[in-house]
Amino acid sequence: MSELEKGMRRLKWAESHMPVLGEIRKRFKKEKPLKGLKVGMALHVEAKTGILAIALAEAGAHVRLASCNPLSTDDSVALALKEGYGLEVYAKKGETQDEYYGNLNKVLDMSPDLIIDDGADLIAILHTSRTDLLKNVRGANEETTTGVVRLRALAADGKLKFPVIAVNDAKMKFLFDNRYGTGQSTFDGWMNATNLLVAGKKMVVAGYGWCGKGIAMRAKGLGASVIVTEVDPIRAIEARLDGFEVMRMIDAVKVADAVLTVTGCKEIISEEHLKVMKNGCILGNAGHFDNEIDKKVLDSMSESKEKVRESVEEYRLKDKRKVYLIAEGRLMNLAAGQGHPVEIMDMSFATQALAMEHLANNWKDMDKKVHTVSEEMDAEIARIKLMTMGVQIDELTEEQVKYMSGWEEGT
Amino acid sequence: MSELEKGMRRLKWAESHMPVLGEIRKRFKKEKPLKGLKVGMALHVEAKTGILAIALAEAGAHVRLASCNPLSTDDSVALALKEGYGLEVYAKKGETQDEYYGNLNKVLDMSPDLIIDDGADLIAILHTSRTDLLKNVRGANEETTTGVVRLRALAADGKLKFPVIAVNDAKMKFLFDNRYGTGQSTFDGWMNATNLLVAGKKMVVAGYGWCGKGIAMRAKGLGASVIVTEVDPIRAIEARLDGFEVMRMIDAVKVADAVLTVTGCKEIISEEHLKVMKNGCILGNAGHFDNEIDKKVLDSMSESKEKVRESVEEYRLKDKRKVYLIAEGRLMNLAAGQGHPVEIMDMSFATQALAMEHLANNWKDMDKKVHTVSEEMDAEIARIKLMTMGVQIDELTEEQVKYMSGWEEGT
Amino acid sequence: MSELEKGMRRLKWAESHMPVLGEIRKRFKKEKPLKGLKVGMALHVEAKTGILAIALAEAGAHVRLASCNPLSTDDSVALALKEGYGLEVYAKKGETQDEYYGNLNKVLDMSPDLIIDDGADLIAILHTSRTDLLKNVRGANEETTTGVVRLRALAADGKLKFPVIAVNDAKMKFLFDNRYGTGQSTFDGWMNATNLLVAGKKMVVAGYGWCGKGIAMRAKGLGASVIVTEVDPIRAIEARLDGFEVMRMIDAVKVADAVLTVTGCKEIISEEHLKVMKNGCILGNAGHFDNEIDKKVLDSMSESKEKVRESVEEYRLKDKRKVYLIAEGRLMNLAAGQGHPVEIMDMSFATQALAMEHLANNWKDMDKKVHTVSEEMDAEIARIKLMTMGVQIDELTEEQVKYMSGWEEGT
Amino acid sequence: MSELEKGMRRLKWAESHMPVLGEIRKRFKKEKPLKGLKVGMALHVEAKTGILAIALAEAGAHVRLASCNPLSTDDSVALALKEGYGLEVYAKKGETQDEYYGNLNKVLDMSPDLIIDDGADLIAILHTSRTDLLKNVRGANEETTTGVVRLRALAADGKLKFPVIAVNDAKMKFLFDNRYGTGQSTFDGWMNATNLLVAGKKMVVAGYGWCGKGIAMRAKGLGASVIVTEVDPIRAIEARLDGFEVMRMIDAVKVADAVLTVTGCKEIISEEHLKVMKNGCILGNAGHFDNEIDKKVLDSMSESKEKVRESVEEYRLKDKRKVYLIAEGRLMNLAAGQGHPVEIMDMSFATQALAMEHLANNWKDMDKKVHTVSEEMDAEIARIKLMTMGVQIDELTEEQVKYMSGWEEGT
Repeated sequence: MSELEKGMRRLKWAESHMPVLGEIRKRFKKEKPLKGLKVGMALHVEAKTGILAIALAEAGAHVRLASCNPLSTDDSVALALKEGYGLEVYAKKGETQDEYYGNLNKVLDMSPDLIIDDGADLIAILHTSRTDLLKNVRGANEETTTGVVRLRALAADGKLKFPVIAVNDAKMKFLFDNRYGTGQSTFDGWMNATNLLVAGKKMVVAGYGWCGKGIAMRAKGLGASVIVTEVDPIRAIEARLDGFEVMRMIDAVKVADAVLTVTGCKEIISEEHLKVMKNGCILGNAGHFDNEIDKKVLDSMSESKEKVRESVEEYRLKDKRKVYLIAEGRLMNLAAGQGHPVEIMDMSFATQALAMEHLANNWKDMDKKVHTVSEEMDAEIARIKLMTMGVQIDELTEEQVKYMSGWEEGT
Repeated sequence: MSELEKGMRRLKWAESHMPVLGEIRKRFKKEKPLKGLKVGMALHVEAKTGILAIALAEAGAHVRLASCNPLSTDDSVALALKEGYGLEVYAKKGETQDEYYGNLNKVLDMSPDLIIDDGADLIAILHTSRTDLLKNVRGANEETTTGVVRLRALAADGKLKFPVIAVNDAKMKFLFDNRYGTGQSTFDGWMNATNLLVAGKKMVVAGYGWCGKGIAMRAKGLGASVIVTEVDPIRAIEARLDGFEVMRMIDAVKVADAVLTVTGCKEIISEEHLKVMKNGCILGNAGHFDNEIDKKVLDSMSESKEKVRESVEEYRLKDKRKVYLIAEGRLMNLAAGQGHPVEIMDMSFATQALAMEHLANNWKDMDKKVHTVSEEMDAEIARIKLMTMGVQIDELTEEQVKYMSGWEEGT
Repeated sequence: MSELEKGMRRLKWAESHMPVLGEIRKRFKKEKPLKGLKVGMALHVEAKTGILAIALAEAGAHVRLASCNPLSTDDSVALALKEGYGLEVYAKKGETQDEYYGNLNKVLDMSPDLIIDDGADLIAILHTSRTDLLKNVRGANEETTTGVVRLRALAADGKLKFPVIAVNDAKMKFLFDNRYGTGQSTFDGWMNATNLLVAGKKMVVAGYGWCGKGIAMRAKGLGASVIVTEVDPIRAIEARLDGFEVMRMIDAVKVADAVLTVTGCKEIISEEHLKVMKNGCILGNAGHFDNEIDKKVLDSMSESKEKVRESVEEYRLKDKRKVYLIAEGRLMNLAAGQGHPVEIMDMSFATQALAMEHLANNWKDMDKKVHTVSEEMDAEIARIKLMTMGVQIDELTEEQVKYMSGWEEGT
Repeated sequence: MSELEKGMRRLKWAESHMPVLGEIRKRFKKEKPLKGLKVGMALHVEAKTGILAIALAEAGAHVRLASCNPLSTDDSVALALKEGYGLEVYAKKGETQDEYYGNLNKVLDMSPDLIIDDGADLIAILHTSRTDLLKNVRGANEETTTGVVRLRALAADGKLKFPVIAVNDAKMKFLFDNRYGTGQSTFDGWMNATNLLVAGKKMVVAGYGWCGKGIAMRAKGLGASVIVTEVDPIRAIEARLDGFEVMRMIDAVKVADAVLTVTGCKEIISEEHLKVMKNGCILGNAGHFDNEIDKKVLDSMSESKEKVRESVEEYRLKDKRKVYLIAEGRLMNLAAGQGHPVEIMDMSFATQALAMEHLANNWKDMDKKVHTVSEEMDAEIARIKLMTMGVQIDELTEEQVKYMSGWEEGT
């Protein structure tokens, strides 16, 4: 099968399992809510993202797409989007730092009206080296926790120059994408990269936010003995009562068969941890940036490194211990796997699509800060999702609605 | 063993497993933050509650205690609190409606300065038949979701006459008490009441809030095949992705071996459901009030009913089907079991204790509305809890703190 | 409710949830397969056992019943069997060693034709102090692993004087009773005895046979962090791949919040373990005999002990550590809980009933050794169980049957 | 990375995670137990198998290797075994039926002394078209349930011409390989083939033997709502008590989002099922042969089919429903994934290695039937496995050993 054909099939397959976005696309094709607008996107360039890009084009937008991560592009899909759908795509798997930023800048060269970002690199460039383009930008969506954290910091500094919708913070996104999406796709990456058993492994999950909860839940579901590390005491207690061991990383690495980081913070695995790490430990990251595991320190402590599988490097430390790193410490679910399951991205990207439409319609009235998605938008997507799953649920009776808003009735 | 001795032992046992409240009690004994204040309490009168009442007395308060539910009192503990600790307790297991309200009024007769309520019956009386006492009330804590919902409705009507702290909404409360507490204690009630197997049963859990999540999780953990009913589409999708069946109650009751309600709403099991319910179905409730299963309708549809176990009644419907009801549809975890595990109530009541102190110190400056617990209070309790569990966690380095509040660093 | 009434209700309730034995009883009442035979039974005297005793009486037998454990009798049921059903019962909760053996001997005084034993104490007496009665005994059923192990040893010594059917080894018994029965009822005992949280506890399960697997599975299902100890390397690997920690007991007790023994062997918790045990550790046993936790050593190491709950004793060790023992180290699921769930015992006791009938019909042709239950008997009980659950399963087509017994068809 | 390099790395990686076989190889290299013997192998030709082949060569054997399945070869590994290790390998991914049998015959052309088979195709050829070679064959190992069933049938027909060791029936094989191996690798195949979400899917698992148990357990662990189909009533009850729905396939396919077959029988999904199957259902097989899903009927009911992903075909039925088939109905864990995790095959192939040695030493004294692996061999492998995991377990004291073999000590 040719690369193009492979990519086309992956797109078609994704499309046929994205019914929520599908319902929205039907309307977008008719109503053209993005007519004449230029949309610059930086997302993981793979099949599900492709369907979102197509949806925006169908809504009337002129779309340019780059990757938000140097390792996460599915080249067959990039090709298919270009040759099969005529979209402007600037991305390849395995970009150098220069190529990566070059591609982001090509997206910006179109002087976009609207932005979809994932991790906030595109928006950060706009606020630093490409400030000339700011005046044309009406608003942006941000896909992920890390990006939202960065943009809240930017807004807190008083420097954010257009309204941003935190798509990540929609219930229909973070409850599902961050938890069930990351949970499954991290082990897609794991299995693909290592072909190693999960059952019986002592697996350390760093971070017990929604993503960490998802990974820990799936690690347990696959038979691992899970250890959680946290800095938040409440989450730590939650992890403990969920049946996991909780300890400091410095203690965890001594017994760890594997460490998976997903904190959104940097230097989670640093020199002090590497010094006492169990021989043979496998390191992977599912957080947005590749700075959770300190690769510089790992390099400096090693006498050699070698690629031992397509997505695994073996570091031989000077004291003869070995440490394995999956996908250069980049998002292992995308760099070593196929990313989140299609049905998950269907919900996330349905949110992206409606948020884009909202920005196009309302940007003038929106403050230059980080906005959350409205309850109505969340509910609308949930309603479509339930319908496409064929699930029926109860509705409150009038009597019950009244009861829930009263205070008189008691024991 | 005499009732008194039994009650004393239950109190001692609870005390020895409530180290978080224990730390706070050490300080309270010294600092006497409630000195000279009258505290009127309506909580489930059992061992853990007893320790909270003792803690408040140690803090200098004059305490009166009634039950917040006619079936949830542990008589041995009530006796021990009276005879062993000299507290004023007005409660017994199996109160009539008159006795129940009589006891609440006895608590109010002291003209309390501060209130601890659970379900808001005490506060509702204050705002209706005992309005004369309102002027003396400085504030109140509310323990449970149902009470908070009622009080928010009261405040929305503009009628709430003193500040209320929604102890229920503290993370250290709802994340643990509502989920792990309700999850375990509901099955304490189940096993005690029925001696029936959970594994292999089709168990319907009505409501997928924190309590429902806890019950569904434990039902699954004990081997049941779980069906969830919900009115909220997002929670419904969550339940489905957690591996549970989701359907309308009218469909669920046709296949249900058991239905456990925990919605905080009324008439969850009503006539239409009873008409098509599977023969032999067992009904239980873990929500605050006994109106989730419509007992009036159940009575009217039955030709007879009989107590077939200490906490189970068999209803013989006119069409010869049988339906079993646990603990008269009242909170089965307390009415048929021993209530939440001690360690859970340690966290919840540590929050109660600190919230009481906060009210005593700050009531004058607090609006007459429903307040949430501060992040600091949550964090303080979490810190003590971790310490008493002997669990150590990581702390952010200065570098990491800076990184988390910056936006410049990207790919 | 009077004790008699309570017992009668418990029996009725059990009866209504034992449909498999119910089907067999219908036939027994007509066919009277045990007509004129004296059946001596030693089982845990509680409601489910009561229904078995009634079934045997209905089959025409003259029945005497004692308890197989000094702490496991439900006095209300014993009373109801005597006064409500006219059965000869010699049992009470909390027998001394003398009373216990006295009651077993009263059962034997009838010179039984058939025996149902649980743990093999009755059969051991017959082979030592009551050998005069041996000539009249046609055969026996043995209920539990421990009894089967003892009787195999007796047979291996060439001393077994009548055929024994190892009811325990029937698939319809050990796959369900030992695993799901013990799993649930142990936590019935735990909750009832302690009211302590399972979630987040480090719980050591000693033994990973069917019973241990059941307990570990339920401990995990209730949120514990489980450690397994084993002497069998294959089971140890199984436990590890099931996601549990595996270590030596001497290491496990240092971190254990609780230790539950279910090995069928003695001195699982001995002096060396008690010496290094974590302060506050809770000990419970679900194995047949009360010798898994060495109580003599525990006594000798303690400066005092006190009953701190109805079924918990606190041992104050001389070095000031405390250790808690549930139900005197006897079967905690029966001594502190209500024993296995009714539906489980329905399957086990259906096997007992059919095995009794088999002995009555075939004892003359059976060797004086330990026999297993036939595949046909297992299948018959399974068929009835599925039918009473309303579950339909597939059947092999003729074509498939042929395929499964051929070797020619390949890739 | 070149194909050869990729294959070499996969072999090295496998080797470094196969310490149990590693220990055996150390001895084999010294003792050369297979010196001068010709070993013909038909196994899935991928990295772990490669290490077994190398181990046998190191033991002195002359090895030829073909694949036991037309779709399961990892071409990069086949290349590496040939070019990097000089082994004779006859296998490629995607063999036609003719190529497949051609390759098996090439293995036989060497006139092997010993055979390792997987599914019994090689042995079936020897007993039909290549009977001339039988006289030279000393014995064979069989790897999988399906092969063992076929060979037992062959032996029952009195036609088996040499002793066979059922490696599959070793505890260290079926308890781990069939359960945890199949469980994980089936979802490696699922994720790789479909990129679809497991959570929330209604997944039917056909067959609840060890493999089916493994798949059902992992489906649940990944969030699916699992339905089991069975023909054995006892296993059906087990599945139900494990929390799964149990029903007939004809009922299950109406609600199934996916059906995974792993029965070892044929026509599990046949015309009657396809007629009522839910639109969009995904079919996969993890049983040995590709006859569990009836492809002929599927073809005849379809108006077209198309490859929609690398390992998924879409069948468009004449009534417009769609059905998806993974990997042509062949073993999806190997044809669409990388096969069992390395550590699992380490245990299975350690058993293969010791069983080969056993045959080489004892073939003359072994009956021409299907033999099981000795307890000692199982225990030896378990011992090495525990050692390489760094897990220590308890040992029985002398006192305990004596107790376990006695019958005198009772209550």
